[in-house]
Amino acid sequence: MKIIIVGATGTMGKYLANAWEKEHEVIRVGSSSGDFQVDTTSSESIEKLFNQVGPFDALVCTAGPTHVGPWKTMTGKEFKKGLEGKLMGQVNLVLIGQHYINPKGSFTLITGALAQEPVLNFANASAANGAVESFVRAAAIELGNGIRINAVSPTVIEDSPQYFPFFPGDIPVTMQQLEYGFRKSVFGANTGKVIKPY
Amino acid sequence: MKIIIVGATGTMGKYLANAWEKEHEVIRVGSSSGDFQVDTTSSESIEKLFNQVGPFDALVCTAGPTHVGPWKTMTGKEFKKGLEGKLMGQVNLVLIGQHYINPKGSFTLITGALAQEPVLNFANASAANGAVESFVRAAAIELGNGIRINAVSPTVIEDSPQYFPFFPGDIPVTMQQLEYGFRKSVFGANTGKVIKPY
Ligand SMILES: NC(=O)c1ccc[n+]([C@@H]2O[C@H](COP(=O)([O-])OP(=O)(O)OC[C@H]3O[C@@H](n4cnc5c(N)ncnc54)[C@H](OP(=O)(O)O)[C@@H]3O)[C@@H](O)[C@H]2O)c1
Ligand SMILES: NC(=O)c1ccc[n+]([C@@H]2O[C@H](COP(=O)([O-])OP(=O)(O)OC[C@H]3O[C@@H](n4cnc5c(N)ncnc54)[C@H](OP(=O)(O)O)[C@@H]3O)[C@@H](O)[C@H]2O)c1
Repeated sequence: MKIIIVGATGTMGKYLANAWEKEHEVIRVGSSSGDFQVDTTSSESIEKLFNQVGPFDALVCTAGPTHVGPWKTMTGKEFKKGLEGKLMGQVNLVLIGQHYINPKGSFTLITGALAQEPVLNFANASAANGAVESFVRAAAIELGNGIRINAVSPTVIEDSPQYFPFFPGDIPVTMQQLEYGFRKSVFGANTGKVIKPY
Repeated sequence: MKIIIVGATGTMGKYLANAWEKEHEVIRVGSSSGDFQVDTTSSESIEKLFNQVGPFDALVCTAGPTHVGPWKTMTGKEFKKGLEGKLMGQVNLVLIGQHYINPKGSFTLITGALAQEPVLNFANASAANGAVESFVRAAAIELGNGIRINAVSPTVIEDSPQYFPFFPGDIPVTMQQLEYGFRKSVFGANTGKVIKPY
C-alpha cells in the first residue's frame, strides 16, 4: 500500500512511519523536512504535493497546529490558527486529495479527546477537533469510489510528556495504542468513525 | 433580563424575540435590519455592537451562515464560509462579549443535528456545528463570574419547509420545541451543554 503521512516528522507521524515502512511504501511529508514538504494551510501547496507524489492508497494526517494560550485575552486572530491549521488544513487535504486517491483508498485525520473533554488553554484545539469529527462523518457519505474516511482521537500521548501537566488525570495513550487506532482506520473497512484508541 | 438576539430578523430569531419580548428587554440584531446591525464575521463590527448596546444579561445567537452545495467540486474557499460565519462569528461574539456581559450572564449559540447526523451537501454546516459544540464545552470551563454558555441543536425546523427535501426522515422540530431549547439555556442554570430540543 502506498501511504502518505502528512506530519511524518512529528511525534505521532514518526512512530507511524517507522511502524509501517517495512510492509508498505510510506511517503513522509513534513512542513520543513521529510521526503516531501507541504504547508497544509495553502491549497496550492497541497495541490503541488499530490502532483509530486502521484496516486496513493491512504493518506494519514497527524499535522494539526492549534493555538494554546490563556482564554481571557484570546483573540479571534489567535483562534484562527487552529481553524486554518488543524481544521482547514485537513479539510483541504481531503477536498483536494479525493481527486488523486486510488479507488477504495482512505483518509485518516487527527482529532483528540479535547473535542469532548476540554482542558484549560486548549479551547482552540477543542473547536478544531469537534469540526474535524463532524466533517469526517459528513465526508463519509459524500466520498465516491469506495473511498473511506475516519479520524483518530487520542488523549495526551505517551511520547509528549511536555503536555502532561495540562491534562491532569488523563491516562496517556501509549504509542502502540495510537498506532492501533490509525491501523484500524487505514487497514480496516470502517468509514465515518471517530476512533478512540484506548 | 436584557437579552441580545443576534439573528433576530431570521426564522428562529424572530420567533424567540416575539416569545420573550413581553417579559424581557429584547434587543433585536440582524445583519441588515433589526434594532442594531452587526456583521459577525468582523471583530470590529462585534465590538461596535457591544459598545452601542451596553451591558446585557444574555446573548442568543441564531446567525450562522454556511455554504450548502455539491461535495465533488467543493473548494476550501467555499468551505470557509461556515468557518467564518457560523463558527468564528459565534466564537468572536463570546471572546469579545465576555468583556461586556453582566456577571451570571449567559451565551447561547446555534448548532444543529448535522454535527452528528450528516446529510448530502451540508458538510460545511456539519463541521461548523461540531466546532461550536466542542467550543461551548471548552468555553464553559474558562468563563469567569458565573457566566454560562450552551448551544442549541435542532434538526430541521418547522418554519423552514424549504429545507425538508434535504433532510429525508428528519422529524421537524416545532418552533415551540426550539423555543424550549433556548429557554432552557437562557433561563436555566446549566453550562457547557448541547441542548437537543426534541
Ligand atoms: N501530542 C499529543 O499528546 C496529542 C494528543 C492528542 C492530539 N494531538 C494532536 O495530534 C497532532 C500531532 O501531534 P504531534 O505531537 O505529533 O505534533 P508534532 O510533534 O508537533 O508534529 C507536527 C507535525 O506536523 C507538521 N506540520 C505542522 N504544521 C504543518 C503545516 N502547516 N503543514 C504541514 N505540516 C505541518 C510538522 O512538520 P515539521 O516537523 O516539518 O514542522 C510535524 O511533522 C496535533 O494536531 C495535536 O493537536 C496530540
Ligand atoms: N432553519 C433550520 O431548519 C435550521 C435547523 C438547524 C439549524 N439551523 C441553523 O440555525 C441558524 C439560523 O437559522 P434560520 O433559519 O433562523 O436562518 P435565517 O432565517 O436565514 O436567519 C439568519 C439570521 O442571521 C442573520 N445573519 C446572517 N448572516 C449574518 C452575519 N454575518 N452577521 C450578523 N447577522 C447575520 C440574518 O440577518 P439579516 O436578516 O439582517 O440578513 C438573520 O437575522 C443557521 O446557522 C442554521 O444553520 C437552521
